[in-house]
Amino acid sequence: MAAMPFLATVVPEDSPIILSGVLLTLVIIYFASKIGAEAAKRFDFPPVLGELVAGVVVGVSALHLVIFPEGGLSAADSVLMSALQGLNQLEPEALTRIFESQSEVISVLAEIGVIILLFEIGLESDLRQLKEVGVQATVVACVGVAAPFAAGTAGLMLLFHTAAIPAIFAGAALTATSIGITSKVLSELGQIKSKEGQIIVGAAVIDDVLGIIVLAVVASLAKTGEIDVVNVIYLIVSATAFLIGSILLGGVFNKTFVAIVDQLKTRGNVVIPAFIFAFFMAFLGNAIHLEAILGAFAAGLVLDETDARNELDELIKPIADLLVPIFFVTVGARADLGVLNPAVPENRAGLLIAVFLVLVAIAGKLITGWAAFGQPGINRWAIGVGMIPRGEVGLVFAGIGSASGILDKPLEVSIIIMVILTTFLAPPFLRVAFGSSTDLIPEPSTPVKVTSE
Amino acid sequence: MAAMPFLATVVPEDSPIILSGVLLTLVIIYFASKIGAEAAKRFDFPPVLGELVAGVVVGVSALHLVIFPEGGLSAADSVLMSALQGLNQLEPEALTRIFESQSEVISVLAEIGVIILLFEIGLESDLRQLKEVGVQATVVACVGVAAPFAAGTAGLMLLFHTAAIPAIFAGAALTATSIGITSKVLSELGQIKSKEGQIIVGAAVIDDVLGIIVLAVVASLAKTGEIDVVNVIYLIVSATAFLIGSILLGGVFNKTFVAIVDQLKTRGNVVIPAFIFAFFMAFLGNAIHLEAILGAFAAGLVLDETDARNELDELIKPIADLLVPIFFVTVGARADLGVLNPAVPENRAGLLIAVFLVLVAIAGKLITGWAAFGQPGINRWAIGVGMIPRGEVGLVFAGIGSASGILDKPLEVSIIIMVILTTFLAPPFLRVAFGSSTDLIPEPSTPVKVTSE
Repeated sequence: MAAMPFLATVVPEDSPIILSGVLLTLVIIYFASKIGAEAAKRFDFPPVLGELVAGVVVGVSALHLVIFPEGGLSAADSVLMSALQGLNQLEPEALTRIFESQSEVISVLAEIGVIILLFEIGLESDLRQLKEVGVQATVVACVGVAAPFAAGTAGLMLLFHTAAIPAIFAGAALTATSIGITSKVLSELGQIKSKEGQIIVGAAVIDDVLGIIVLAVVASLAKTGEIDVVNVIYLIVSATAFLIGSILLGGVFNKTFVAIVDQLKTRGNVVIPAFIFAFFMAFLGNAIHLEAILGAFAAGLVLDETDARNELDELIKPIADLLVPIFFVTVGARADLGVLNPAVPENRAGLLIAVFLVLVAIAGKLITGWAAFGQPGINRWAIGVGMIPRGEVGLVFAGIGSASGILDKPLEVSIIIMVILTTFLAPPFLRVAFGSSTDLIPEPSTPVKVTSE
Repeated sequence: MAAMPFLATVVPEDSPIILSGVLLTLVIIYFASKIGAEAAKRFDFPPVLGELVAGVVVGVSALHLVIFPEGGLSAADSVLMSALQGLNQLEPEALTRIFESQSEVISVLAEIGVIILLFEIGLESDLRQLKEVGVQATVVACVGVAAPFAAGTAGLMLLFHTAAIPAIFAGAALTATSIGITSKVLSELGQIKSKEGQIIVGAAVIDDVLGIIVLAVVASLAKTGEIDVVNVIYLIVSATAFLIGSILLGGVFNKTFVAIVDQLKTRGNVVIPAFIFAFFMAFLGNAIHLEAILGAFAAGLVLDETDARNELDELIKPIADLLVPIFFVTVGARADLGVLNPAVPENRAGLLIAVFLVLVAIAGKLITGWAAFGQPGINRWAIGVGMIPRGEVGLVFAGIGSASGILDKPLEVSIIIMVILTTFLAPPFLRVAFGSSTDLIPEPSTPVKVTSE
């Protein structure tokens, strides 16, 4: 009942059950994330890979404990919802409402998780070094967008006789790297601050922006047969203004932030101002139709320049530890490995295209390592591998393409397979590419340690 | 777009806008909480009072920035929603959906906030000392339930000629102390570990359980004219079993928890197991129709006994700093001070009854200090004042009573006024009751400090 303070006139009976659902889902997510991360660590894989796989186990592909109302799934498919129904004797409509509300809350928590991850990555990054490798990162990003786009589109048209518009659409789905997966693995390998790490993060940020622009171009091309030039120019200008603006802001905001923090005398004096800034920047990034995570990354970069950063680094760790796993486990939970099942006839056509798309997706990013010019002795394999994981933008392409009828089922399935495989293959590949010279950094990296048995 | 990973077939266009709404609401809540807490601190009031008042300013009573779809409020009443509509050109139905989803997310975040607060209070409490004062706390709780219930019911019937059933209902609404407000103020005063603090926390936990039982009795009495004995016995047995069971569990779980934590080698090795336990206990408390916060408090008590507790104390601080303010600001935001306006005719009848209920609510808890027997030299005023703030349970009474037609508008309004006034008056009163000997503990209590300007 503490649940709904000052709720005088309406008492939605759903509320405590939604809370039960959210709490139970979080318990499952945390269990899965810890078991997955620890198992991966034992076998010398990056922990985040374990979290993704654990997500698959509890998600739509296997146990159906953590599922979302998408792809035709309803409350009846959810083991957790069935348990809640048993506990509370709910009407079917109430169950559907609760399932949707609970899924919405978990989705937003996952989004806040990846926002906090990118904020932390921004804090771990070094703006000066990022500026130093800025030109290389831009070239890497452009090559990494152009190569898989061109090869994917041409290959689909020549080898599979796909029509031009769907081929362009599928090619475009190969462009954008998933910053979340890559940056988390880099962080786990202790490679965020390395030259390779900074080139990868910089290039991933830039190619995410490029991916959004490509999406706008391709979507308007598919819809009207023409390119909405105004919108494309708007996106390019707003993205550039946003990233450069926030870096310039850094110089001004630096002293102000520390001055404000020093004035505050109540609990949360460092955390709250930092998160006001991070969430506001994430909101801005989201509101101008870029991405929330880009705003959070920019906020982290800015605050990394301030004198408060060492304190902030320590304070953000437990917060990230609590919220980031929600993102990775739900990414795994949403991945429907059923599309890999060749026993389903409509998957078969997709599987062959998928093999082709996966090869293009990997090769098209691998070559980007050799686009990082003027850096003798740099680990080019690592850069290429670091750019491999695709994620959200690719799936948005698949979703929009399928909804608008541009992509047929085989092409849609093959894009989803491409996203799943690149996401799951990149973490172990990246580990190998950085070589045995880079052992996983000793974890937990928190200074706090249990003192006795 | 990072927002919806692996969202292949359904692309709810609402999703990024809900995220925008949540982020913007959090920015407003954090701004309000910091300004309120710092201002209160400057005037030597408990910071949590500042957060409550700041919540009132941004909430339904004033700026309409943070409002919830209850009491007839819709998206059109929300300044924030109007801003989002301006940014995104939304249809009215989409706006309503987004408003409701966003409000649901913020409500659950506030609930998680108070769960984490009670988990932290449990960690700060001392099970041995709580056992020592257990009998006194039980007596304090029983007196604090019986006195305002009897005085309130009798007074309404004799002075205001209220019928028996609504009088009993309103009397019952006076029973349960709000643990959240009281424990936060005690923590801010550094008094959680004092004998008075432990009696207050123990009594507040017990009277919360008593309040739930009274609610079950009164609600069944009002509905059928009879008392649902089975349900009442179920509640008494399950509440007792839950609290005693979790304390006994503490002895067993103690070593297991530390052994597990010592085995874990990935990030979040202390935080995640602790929160698995806390959220699971909160779920259990909620699922057996007690309260989630009671489960979280019990989890904190258990983990307080482990050797991992010092680490946990430090790790939970930034998490609590980030989530707890959401609870207090939304409590303030939901409080509609419009019911205090005597210019509205239907409020006038309520105001006189409200004055009576407030006096009974305060006096009925003040005397509980003298129920703490066998404790010479104890600060009896502080105990009495600590029990004053009513909260959620009182409002649930008002809500159920109004929805079922038992309470007329004046009685409902007067219960709401009673809850608002006791909530807002208790923090400064408690500060005075503990006297100038207890200055506000130096905050921020985190060891981390900004090192240079």
